[in-house]
Amino acid sequence: MRILVIGAGGQVGRTAVEALDGHEVVSASRSSEPSVDITDPSSIERLFASTGQVDAVIVAVGEVPFRPLADLSHADYESAFRGKVLSQLDVVRIGTPYVRDGGSITLTSGILSREPIATGAAASLANGAVESYVHAAATELPRGIRINAVSPSVLEDAPGYHSSFPGFVPVSSHRVGQAFVKSVLGVQTGQVFPVD
Amino acid sequence: MRILVIGAGGQVGRTAVEALDGHEVVSASRSSEPSVDITDPSSIERLFASTGQVDAVIVAVGEVPFRPLADLSHADYESAFRGKVLSQLDVVRIGTPYVRDGGSITLTSGILSREPIATGAAASLANGAVESYVHAAATELPRGIRINAVSPSVLEDAPGYHSSFPGFVPVSSHRVGQAFVKSVLGVQTGQVFPVD
Ligand SMILES: NC(=O)c1ccc[n+]([C@@H]2O[C@H](COP(=O)([O-])OP(=O)(O)OC[C@H]3O[C@@H](n4cnc5c(N)ncnc54)[C@H](OP(=O)(O)O)[C@@H]3O)[C@@H](O)[C@H]2O)c1
Ligand SMILES: NC(=O)c1ccc[n+]([C@@H]2O[C@H](COP(=O)([O-])OP(=O)(O)OC[C@H]3O[C@@H](n4cnc5c(N)ncnc54)[C@H](OP(=O)(O)O)[C@@H]3O)[C@@H](O)[C@H]2O)c1
Repeated sequence: MRILVIGAGGQVGRTAVEALDGHEVVSASRSSEPSVDITDPSSIERLFASTGQVDAVIVAVGEVPFRPLADLSHADYESAFRGKVLSQLDVVRIGTPYVRDGGSITLTSGILSREPIATGAAASLANGAVESYVHAAATELPRGIRINAVSPSVLEDAPGYHSSFPGFVPVSSHRVGQAFVKSVLGVQTGQVFPVD
Repeated sequence: MRILVIGAGGQVGRTAVEALDGHEVVSASRSSEPSVDITDPSSIERLFASTGQVDAVIVAVGEVPFRPLADLSHADYESAFRGKVLSQLDVVRIGTPYVRDGGSITLTSGILSREPIATGAAASLANGAVESYVHAAATELPRGIRINAVSPSVLEDAPGYHSSFPGFVPVSSHRVGQAFVKSVLGVQTGQVFPVD
């Protein structure tokens, strides 16, 4: 399969790339070639014009502000929405015509949709939005195209975050990668794959 | 109790007002007095400056575009976010200092967070965002203030929507009102109260 992975060099994106070894992976991000900034729809359009048709798209990108609730501003909520929700939805919107019949799109949310941590309210909001969107969008995508979200807990390989997730048992990159594999090579659609 | 209900005249807001009969309800909306447009933070500030302290705040307002997935634009997703998510979060953000110790805030989401309908992807997104936010915000609100979301299916009293919800059994205004009562007079926080 030819699989476009946006955010391929990141901690989460890397798990997908490794798990999909043997497939033709096209890795994209702001600093790689092909390059894309998914917060900019015209950049997404240029990306797909350059890649052409793919069998699957994975998005493992999402920027949200972490701040105490009392400090989260109107602009912070907007930034969480643009950085993790709208950006991924724009990839779906713009990318769908480039996905082959029966192909798939996989987005990334995260455990904060279902369990809170301190300073995480904007992240929770973003993850909840992505997950409910995926349930709904699956029913309306054309040509048998599937869509799912991978929703991991904090990664073992992201030790810098561990102290912010007290008592959360970090998950292996292997298991996160397998969730992407399930979404891309499996048959399910409209699902959130938690990796807890 | 002194309870501010924003959107009190609407189909959902009315259920709360009726169920909270006997309490001092302050009804607000764009066309009532006190008036407020919750998509405008400065209007929310003026509202709370005029009401002063309250025991509870209910928000039963949310505007989202319904369109086939293929027609939902970048601007539509932004408008769903502003109309139903950011607007309600701004009420929380700006209103919290006006809620008495141990008081409550209740937001409105809806069944589309958990079950899709045609043309509802932006609504699903908005409801999912509100619900995950509520789980998280509850852990960080000060002074024992609680927060919940009421998440109804389509109302019996909203027959105009019934054909868009095939097989969804419409719920009575009484049951929706009781969900608001549970949130305002009960003890729970960080909860989504589905009314299915
Ligand atoms: N790390 C975890 O433990 C964990 C757990 C659960 C969920 N998540 C979620 O997974 C997502 C990715 O997190 P991560 O930890 O993997 O982040 P990361 O290590 O910082 O990687 C982000 C990747 O995305 C690219 N990127 C960032 N912004 C982009 C943009 N606007 N357009 C295109 N590419 C962009 C980055 O490359 P460039 O800088 O070259 O663009 C990088 O390859 C986030 O939504 C995060 O919340 C992470
Ligand atoms: N009706 C249902 O069956 C149902 C089921 C589940 C969930 N919901 C959700 O419940 C929420 C309310 O829906 P509804 O059916 O009750 O709507 P509605 O009947 O149109 O009532 C909306 C109310 O909110 C006020 N309002 C609208 N925009 C406002 C704004 N920007 N600032 C302040 N007040 C505003 C309106 O009064 P003014 O025009 O005077 O401002 C009106 O009182 C929506 O989020 C909807 O998705 C509805």
